[in-house]
Amino acid sequence: MSDLAAEVAALSKRLQVLEDQQEIIQLIATYGPAVDSLSGDALIDLWTEDGIYDVGGMAPFIGSDVVDVVEAAIHRSFVAAGCAHVQGLPLVHVDGDRAIATSVSRVYVCDGDQWLVERVSANRWELARTPAGWRATYRVNRLLNGSEEAQELLRSGLEPPA
Amino acid sequence: MSDLAAEVAALSKRLQVLEDQQEIIQLIATYGPAVDSLSGDALIDLWTEDGIYDVGGMAPFIGSDVVDVVEAAIHRSFVAAGCAHVQGLPLVHVDGDRAIATSVSRVYVCDGDQWLVERVSANRWELARTPAGWRATYRVNRLLNGSEEAQELLRSGLEPPA
Amino acid sequence: MSDLAAEVAALSKRLQVLEDQQEIIQLIATYGPAVDSLSGDALIDLWTEDGIYDVGGMAPFIGSDVVDVVEAAIHRSFVAAGCAHVQGLPLVHVDGDRAIATSVSRVYVCDGDQWLVERVSANRWELARTPAGWRATYRVNRLLNGSEEAQELLRSGLEPPA
Repeated sequence: MSDLAAEVAALSKRLQVLEDQQEIIQLIATYGPAVDSLSGDALIDLWTEDGIYDVGGMAPFIGSDVVDVVEAAIHRSFVAAGCAHVQGLPLVHVDGDRAIATSVSRVYVCDGDQWLVERVSANRWELARTPAGWRATYRVNRLLNGSEEAQELLRSGLEPPA
Repeated sequence: MSDLAAEVAALSKRLQVLEDQQEIIQLIATYGPAVDSLSGDALIDLWTEDGIYDVGGMAPFIGSDVVDVVEAAIHRSFVAAGCAHVQGLPLVHVDGDRAIATSVSRVYVCDGDQWLVERVSANRWELARTPAGWRATYRVNRLLNGSEEAQELLRSGLEPPA
Repeated sequence: MSDLAAEVAALSKRLQVLEDQQEIIQLIATYGPAVDSLSGDALIDLWTEDGIYDVGGMAPFIGSDVVDVVEAAIHRSFVAAGCAHVQGLPLVHVDGDRAIATSVSRVYVCDGDQWLVERVSANRWELARTPAGWRATYRVNRLLNGSEEAQELLRSGLEPPA
C-alpha cells in the first residue's frame, strides 16, 4: 500500500469512530420522541431482537416487549397530561463493534401551568453494531434517589469498557 | 478517476454528513444563549431571511421579526427573574441541502431559591443549506401539555423526510 | 504535493475539527457522572493541572483542589438525597489549540416523589489541547437568577473568541 493509500485508510478509521458515536447519540435521542408520541415500532427498533430494557422495580422488557412501555397505564396517563422523556448529553465509549453510553434521563409531566420533574435516572446503554446499524443490547436505568445502584451506573460509564 | 481518488471522494461525502449534523446541532444550541442574553442579532441569524418561527397561540414570527421574542414583556420578565431556554439532544435527519431536527425544549424560570419548569415543548426545525451555512427555514413548537399536535411534531421527526 | 495528497490533507483537517468538538463535548458530558458518583479522580482529570473552576460565591478551585466539589458537605447531602448535575447541549468554538464552550447546567435534587431544580447556571468553559487531549483551563458558572453576570457569560459564548 502506498503512503497515501495508508493515510486514506487511517482517515476512514478516524471518521468511522465519529460516525459510530454520532449514530449512537442519535439512537439515544430517538427514545424520547418515540415514547412521548406512543410510537411503539420506532421504540422497538432501538433494541436488538433480544435486547433488554431494565427499568427497575419490575421484570426487564425483552425484545419487542419493550412496546409495553408505551402501553402502560401510567405512561398513557403521563402522555394524556403532557410529558417529555429527555436524555442528557451521553458519554459514549466505542470499542470496535460494541459501545457503552451513559446519560441522565428526566421525565417532565405537565401539572397545571408548570411541569414537574417526575423522574431523574442514571442510564447505562450497552450497544452493538448490527447489519442494520447500532442497536441497544441492554439498557438499564435507576432513579437518582440516593441509591448506590444509580451512582454505580454513572461510575461504571466513566471508563471505557475493559 | 483512480480507485484512491474515488475513495477520497467517498470519505469527503461521509465527512460532509457529520459536518452538516454538527453544524445544525450547534445552530440549535445557539438559540438558548441568544434569547437568555437578549442577543437579538444572534437570534435573527439562526433563520433564513424569510424563515418562520411558529410558537403557537399568536401569529408566527417571520424573518427578522423573530427579534420580538427577546423584546416581549413576558420574556423580559423571565430574564429579569433569571431564566434558561434549554434544547434537548436533537434528532437530525439531513437530506442533501435540507434537514429536519426534532428536539424537546424547556424553559426554567427562577422562583426564590429554586427554578420552576415553566414550559416543555416539542420542536420541529426545518433547515436549509445556504451560502452562509445552515439556517432554519421553519421552526414550530407546541407545549407538551397533552395536545395531540405536540405529539404529532415528535412523531413526524422519527422518520427521514420523504 | 499531488492534488490528491492535498485533498487528503484537507480532509484530515476537516476531520480534526469534528474530532475536537466531539472530544470537548464528551469532556463536558463527563462532569455530571463524575460528581454524581463522587468520582474525584475523573473530576480532576477534566482540568489541566493548574486549571480553574470558578463557581462563584467562594474562592475558585485550582487544579486538583476541584476534588473539594465532591467532598463538600452540601454536595454529599445532595448525593445522599439523590441528585443529577446535567449539562445542556454545548455551543463549541474551536480555534486551533484553544476552545470555548458555552452551556447551561442544572442540578436536580430528589425531594420525596419528585425532583426539584435546585440550580440553573450559565457556564463558560475555556479549553486547551494538551498532550493528553483536551482539558479545561478555566470554567466559570453563575446562577441564572437574573444577574447580568450570568447573561454576559452566555453572550460572550455566541461568537468565536477574537
